[in-house]
Amino acid sequence: MNLPIKKRTTKQTPNMANKGMGLEEMVNQTNSYYLLHEIAVIHKKPIPVQIVKVDYPSRNKAVIKEAYYKTPSTTDYNGLYKGLYIDFDCKECNSLTSFPIKNVHVHQIEHLSAIKRHHGIAFLLIYFIKYNEYFVMPIEEFLPYYEVSLNNGSKSIPYQDIKEKSFIIKEGYNPRLDYLKGIDEYLKKNQ
Amino acid sequence: MNLPIKKRTTKQTPNMANKGMGLEEMVNQTNSYYLLHEIAVIHKKPIPVQIVKVDYPSRNKAVIKEAYYKTPSTTDYNGLYKGLYIDFDCKECNSLTSFPIKNVHVHQIEHLSAIKRHHGIAFLLIYFIKYNEYFVMPIEEFLPYYEVSLNNGSKSIPYQDIKEKSFIIKEGYNPRLDYLKGIDEYLKKNQ
Repeated sequence: MNLPIKKRTTKQTPNMANKGMGLEEMVNQTNSYYLLHEIAVIHKKPIPVQIVKVDYPSRNKAVIKEAYYKTPSTTDYNGLYKGLYIDFDCKECNSLTSFPIKNVHVHQIEHLSAIKRHHGIAFLLIYFIKYNEYFVMPIEEFLPYYEVSLNNGSKSIPYQDIKEKSFIIKEGYNPRLDYLKGIDEYLKKNQ
Repeated sequence: MNLPIKKRTTKQTPNMANKGMGLEEMVNQTNSYYLLHEIAVIHKKPIPVQIVKVDYPSRNKAVIKEAYYKTPSTTDYNGLYKGLYIDFDCKECNSLTSFPIKNVHVHQIEHLSAIKRHHGIAFLLIYFIKYNEYFVMPIEEFLPYYEVSLNNGSKSIPYQDIKEKSFIIKEGYNPRLDYLKGIDEYLKKNQ
């Protein structure tokens, strides 16, 4: 089988998982495009950090000298599209056959479920690296698999199921990854 | 005149403005209440930080050793209420007579304007310390004053104008500051 394996540069950040970097960069570029072209206002949230010590070498410059990563309580991305609240997280998947449910943290599942209950649009943006395929998977399609995994069932979602329950997104030039097309399809289907 | 001046504790953070801390803490507590009682999903965004150097004294513990504050590109708060996208920033005001427009940064005005154009609910949550009064001021009411200030007009909004163009919020016990009541009034008026 001749798979379109895409070469990706890996950054030398010691002990830091590089997962999601490529996808996140594409999403960030796409969000800038959306903002500039008045399509949507979607931003990545900053990494939450607990600041312990700050130095002030000069009046205007504060240098953080000691800080720690905190566990986020939400997802990485949220914003506004066509008057609708949008919320999602990016996930890269290295497998050819399935998406491991443990890739999605409990706080992310809880947050996306809350968004859905409050009538927002909540989803996962899943990248199957080996197929070079991108999927918008609504949280309500993900949750039944999560329930099964909690009840000692399968701990992953088969690739074929992801394909059936999600909206596929094509990679482009500008915008790099027009994932709101997936949201348009989702809205058409759900209205 | 006997004004209900509220005593507030000041934290000893050298060279760091303490402005907004009291109000933000109230808003954070209120957001926790909203989340717990399934009223709304509104979170404060983390402070954006540019991380330069990270140490790994042990396998699981990363210590940030050098980092800098970055200018945010959005406001501090956003979320979802009754299916609507909500976006705002907190502002404390020490004056008895007016609210200085420079208290709101340009990037915040631009962001809130974009939210309004995309049919979200964008506002300032203004606290007049000396009156112990809280106001939800929709961004569309703020913008005309901003325009005037850009055209060499007044650089502040009179207290009486804030009172007329905003929705007053009562301080409470739990939730501490039920600012979504202001949004309810706003929606009633605008529907």
